[in-house]
Amino acid sequence: MKGNEMSGNENLYKIIFRTEGGAEYSARAKAGASLLAVARDAGVAIDAPCSGNGTCGKCRVKLVSGGVDAVRGRHISEADFAGGFRLACESAVLGDAEVFVPESAFAWQSRIRVDERGADSGEKLARITGWFAEAGFAPDGDVRCVRVDMDAPSLDDAEADLERLRGAAGLALKSAADAASNNGAAEGRAPDACADAARGEAPLAVGIGALRGLPSVLRANSFSAYCVVADGAASGGANVVAGGAAYANRVIGVCAEPVRPVGIALDIGTTTVSAMLVELSTGEPLSVGSAGNGQIRYGADVINRLIESARPGGAERLRRAVAEECIAPLTRSVCAQAGIDPSLVAKVSIAGNTTMAHLLLGIPGENIRMEPYVPAFFSADGLRGADLGIGVCPDAAVYIAPSVGSYVGGDITAGVLATGLHRRPESSMLIDLGTNGEIVLAGDGFLLACACSAGPAFEGGDMSCGMRATDGAIWSVGIDGETMEPTLDVIGGIPPAGICGTGFIELIGELYRCRIIDARGKFIREGERIKSDEWDGRYMVLADGVSITETDIDNFIRAKGSVFSAMRTMLELTGMDASDLERVYIAGGIGSAIDIASAVRIGMLPAIPEERYEYIGNSSLAGAYDILLSADARAQLAEIQGGMTYIELSTHPGYMDEFIAACFIPHTDAKLFE
Amino acid sequence: MKGNEMSGNENLYKIIFRTEGGAEYSARAKAGASLLAVARDAGVAIDAPCSGNGTCGKCRVKLVSGGVDAVRGRHISEADFAGGFRLACESAVLGDAEVFVPESAFAWQSRIRVDERGADSGEKLARITGWFAEAGFAPDGDVRCVRVDMDAPSLDDAEADLERLRGAAGLALKSAADAASNNGAAEGRAPDACADAARGEAPLAVGIGALRGLPSVLRANSFSAYCVVADGAASGGANVVAGGAAYANRVIGVCAEPVRPVGIALDIGTTTVSAMLVELSTGEPLSVGSAGNGQIRYGADVINRLIESARPGGAERLRRAVAEECIAPLTRSVCAQAGIDPSLVAKVSIAGNTTMAHLLLGIPGENIRMEPYVPAFFSADGLRGADLGIGVCPDAAVYIAPSVGSYVGGDITAGVLATGLHRRPESSMLIDLGTNGEIVLAGDGFLLACACSAGPAFEGGDMSCGMRATDGAIWSVGIDGETMEPTLDVIGGIPPAGICGTGFIELIGELYRCRIIDARGKFIREGERIKSDEWDGRYMVLADGVSITETDIDNFIRAKGSVFSAMRTMLELTGMDASDLERVYIAGGIGSAIDIASAVRIGMLPAIPEERYEYIGNSSLAGAYDILLSADARAQLAEIQGGMTYIELSTHPGYMDEFIAACFIPHTDAKLFE
Repeated sequence: MKGNEMSGNENLYKIIFRTEGGAEYSARAKAGASLLAVARDAGVAIDAPCSGNGTCGKCRVKLVSGGVDAVRGRHISEADFAGGFRLACESAVLGDAEVFVPESAFAWQSRIRVDERGADSGEKLARITGWFAEAGFAPDGDVRCVRVDMDAPSLDDAEADLERLRGAAGLALKSAADAASNNGAAEGRAPDACADAARGEAPLAVGIGALRGLPSVLRANSFSAYCVVADGAASGGANVVAGGAAYANRVIGVCAEPVRPVGIALDIGTTTVSAMLVELSTGEPLSVGSAGNGQIRYGADVINRLIESARPGGAERLRRAVAEECIAPLTRSVCAQAGIDPSLVAKVSIAGNTTMAHLLLGIPGENIRMEPYVPAFFSADGLRGADLGIGVCPDAAVYIAPSVGSYVGGDITAGVLATGLHRRPESSMLIDLGTNGEIVLAGDGFLLACACSAGPAFEGGDMSCGMRATDGAIWSVGIDGETMEPTLDVIGGIPPAGICGTGFIELIGELYRCRIIDARGKFIREGERIKSDEWDGRYMVLADGVSITETDIDNFIRAKGSVFSAMRTMLELTGMDASDLERVYIAGGIGSAIDIASAVRIGMLPAIPEERYEYIGNSSLAGAYDILLSADARAQLAEIQGGMTYIELSTHPGYMDEFIAACFIPHTDAKLFE
Repeated sequence: MKGNEMSGNENLYKIIFRTEGGAEYSARAKAGASLLAVARDAGVAIDAPCSGNGTCGKCRVKLVSGGVDAVRGRHISEADFAGGFRLACESAVLGDAEVFVPESAFAWQSRIRVDERGADSGEKLARITGWFAEAGFAPDGDVRCVRVDMDAPSLDDAEADLERLRGAAGLALKSAADAASNNGAAEGRAPDACADAARGEAPLAVGIGALRGLPSVLRANSFSAYCVVADGAASGGANVVAGGAAYANRVIGVCAEPVRPVGIALDIGTTTVSAMLVELSTGEPLSVGSAGNGQIRYGADVINRLIESARPGGAERLRRAVAEECIAPLTRSVCAQAGIDPSLVAKVSIAGNTTMAHLLLGIPGENIRMEPYVPAFFSADGLRGADLGIGVCPDAAVYIAPSVGSYVGGDITAGVLATGLHRRPESSMLIDLGTNGEIVLAGDGFLLACACSAGPAFEGGDMSCGMRATDGAIWSVGIDGETMEPTLDVIGGIPPAGICGTGFIELIGELYRCRIIDARGKFIREGERIKSDEWDGRYMVLADGVSITETDIDNFIRAKGSVFSAMRTMLELTGMDASDLERVYIAGGIGSAIDIASAVRIGMLPAIPEERYEYIGNSSLAGAYDILLSADARAQLAEIQGGMTYIELSTHPGYMDEFIAACFIPHTDAKLFE
């Protein structure tokens, strides 16, 4: 982008941000403006999981020159403060200033990656396609690639490209149909996919995406074109023209080479967005990828983003942060892996929590977090690619997994669809431990869902040394009861940079086993591993560096407590006991390496036979895959959404007591975990 | 916009543009880059009607500091060159530089305004609505405003806003229908418009535009909402959801107050875009406006823009220039005049020439100008507001007047529809003298159309002192045969700044009558009004300043010659003589003050009784108005497009001879004009 500056901003100060990566951004700011806000406006994506409340300490920057108005908080040592370190969120502009943004201020976002340990991407995809087959779903195959041959124009035949294509296509679709019946067809490989069944009779609509490419494709290919053709159901409703006439087919893309008709399945998590490019005729996954949700600079949890979405322009800012800054590039990257033009992506399916669905569509969501917790929508129908701004075909059909409540969203209904929870006769449970925790209890004929405000602790958020389960993360910890010395397992075998969710579960379990902390999570032993300052006590996991503070432990205890008490409340509602659960699926970003024994030891999960627990990774993406391909799956998802009862815990009598009782290690009623 | 600058551009020079208006833009440019191109990239809209060929001389800027590589051309006097004046298009970057951009470099674009003389806006609108009635058209009334009352949500009733609205709306639509039948309805005034006939049975779709506003509207209004509801035909095909189920109604907008359902009719001219905000239920025009087509900085005529559209990113640059920089603000302004939220604009109709239609949709158009002159499309169906990026309702139905050829576009088919040329038994002709000339010859049962490459001369383009028919334009001229002194009429009675199309017709007619120029347009008398330099001879209309050069006269003779020869060719094709024409409608930017006698004297129009000529202003906008409101009109327009025969003059035998014969004043065969 060229830098254009309008003059006449004399009443504004100039703030220059230099990143450790070497990029430089300059912005103008009023006196008193928060350095974090100025950075956000200038496009510097400094992380602020707490959204600038000064609690998470992740927005540490260094003042190079100029002055800001800031007081030293718990997150900055005296030495560092003297050295110019400040929290961006607690620094107010006083005048021109130059600010250095260290890599650490980006780390939480930039180092996010889907947890690959235990289940490599191949296994993950196999699980997803396996579930699809188990459920008896099959691809609709309602998007096809059809070759159309036309006469070249001349002065005597100056028909326009679109009308020329429309004239020739009807015939081509018919012959394609014949070809299909001849060669058995529908292995779905190009060019076989280009001889798929077709409805050749009705008039043909041509979408704006196809129209833009048409002139060059026809002339690059002596007036032959491979058309990506969607039938009525697959064209997001775009098959009815303004006049009202219905088309059976719509050309949504054209190219010079045969192409596989593709769609993209998206799991939009609060922290991570995952994408899967899928061949529509066969269901074959062509590529996968994931990226950090760009909204994270507006807060790690949904609450802070809902607040931001209510500010002027906030909903659009959040929409851009996820759609244009995150999903669009992610789409380009998965398409590039498969050698597909993103503008040919013919279908999009989306699973995300209720807040993510709202913010993706640019809808203010503040009512989600305010009693009586009413979202703008549960099911959004009839959207097209053009409505999303993610660079896919403007005519692409868009399927969004429906929500059942403010805090039980499409990611959960999709997860139930994928795991088939709704089809099983035995009692089972789905626990999704992402940035928030959601729980579904399923029995013969009922589906009960609730959300527990676990917060991002399980993904390492809101923890002073927390990080995602990626290279450098401590994922397993043992402690010597005598010396209090830890033994660590680190992802990627590199020097530890932080602790991920599974690591915290084991670390806190060990700290408690060794009586280094008491049931309330307070330090009760002394030693060189135990340090404390005016703000906090901490256990040094590394002699200098990675540590866990009493505040961290407190956050984590509340997180595990909210999950356990939610499970208890659900079971009580149905007169069940934990031991009645035949199967407990654990999904989400906490990672496959979760040590069930440790989780039970700290009172996070009930003490039932370990083999009943199964970590299933990203079940939300699996559900998105199902509805991308199959109308049956979409119908079943609608039934799941209609049949699921949402329990609002925050107002449920008795839940608070359960929660308070669970905010100990392991629990006020320790017998529960024997 | 905040100014962010990425560093690491050391190999680029810094060019600062200061406008006479006081704005400052800075850009970075490589050595050798054209100053005009750098300005365009930096968003400085310097005019270049000739698109940087150095022929029009409109991109005069003044070098303040730094150096550029430029030679003095015909458009810069030695004194001015010494004073730092340069043509931006003929100046190459040598290093850092500061450039002053005088108002004159913007004038041609910024001072564009629809010619209001003779026909004030009110008369113009009366003509448009009058034609609509004469044709027997009536508004479809398929977009209504319906009040929906809902129960406020509670913890026991936490239904989402959309589902809540959908539940209550069916009932409301029914009762609205009853109310309508009770109070006679359909005066269309809000709130009467809110009790219009409705189809209450089928399920209700809710568009993303409505969804974004829903939460705040419901809560601002104790869960009552006024819904703008479009029926199937009116909803641009968006009424079929991805699942394939059809909706009879679609809520495309919600508001707290009753609103009139509105649409916008657009005439997209090469030079000027005109807009008309219309109440859909009654057809009442609510406001009008016009603005310069932002594409003009890429060339005054379609050819230069078609070339630009084939360059990398060119089609998207041109789309933005007209859609986002011109139509979007124009839409906001006409909506503001009527107090309407632009996102509630439920229908859009567009009439423009073939090139304008392509560039609006971001479709490269180079094939339009290259033999065999094949556009990408004649009719583009099924588009929605979201496809245009002009800030209207994303679900708005979009109607684009179809073209019949590369150089006979939707502006002409729309003009025929509006004037009813296709319905008249007698022989008549429509001559549209905009930036290009198009001619339609209609008789009992036939429609013949052609384009003549008249260029922008009739609008003052490509003329050294040419300007649009707006304040300061000389629109009428008389010359004293003895003294050669002119008498001038100036629009707005202010000091003359230039000459508009009608002024040139009279000026050249007078110069010829007074034998100051010969039949070839060369100066043959001497006097203090006649000046000449190394480049050109000129007649000084003002002793110092406004003048007309032999080059200007030559341009104009070719323009009028192409129009006259095109008329002759058409008439010959049908075995008719000019005297057979009962009616000749003159439309377009040349202005209502055209003096027919002068036009005949210079051989631009055939010598038939003056009363058979009528200036009708913007017939393209009138046609857009018709199709915005009426399905009958859209059906007739489709017939017109299908029934019109396009004559490609450039390859038509005999046309070239006609043209050459017509490139004299008045003509090689002067008897034609006696």
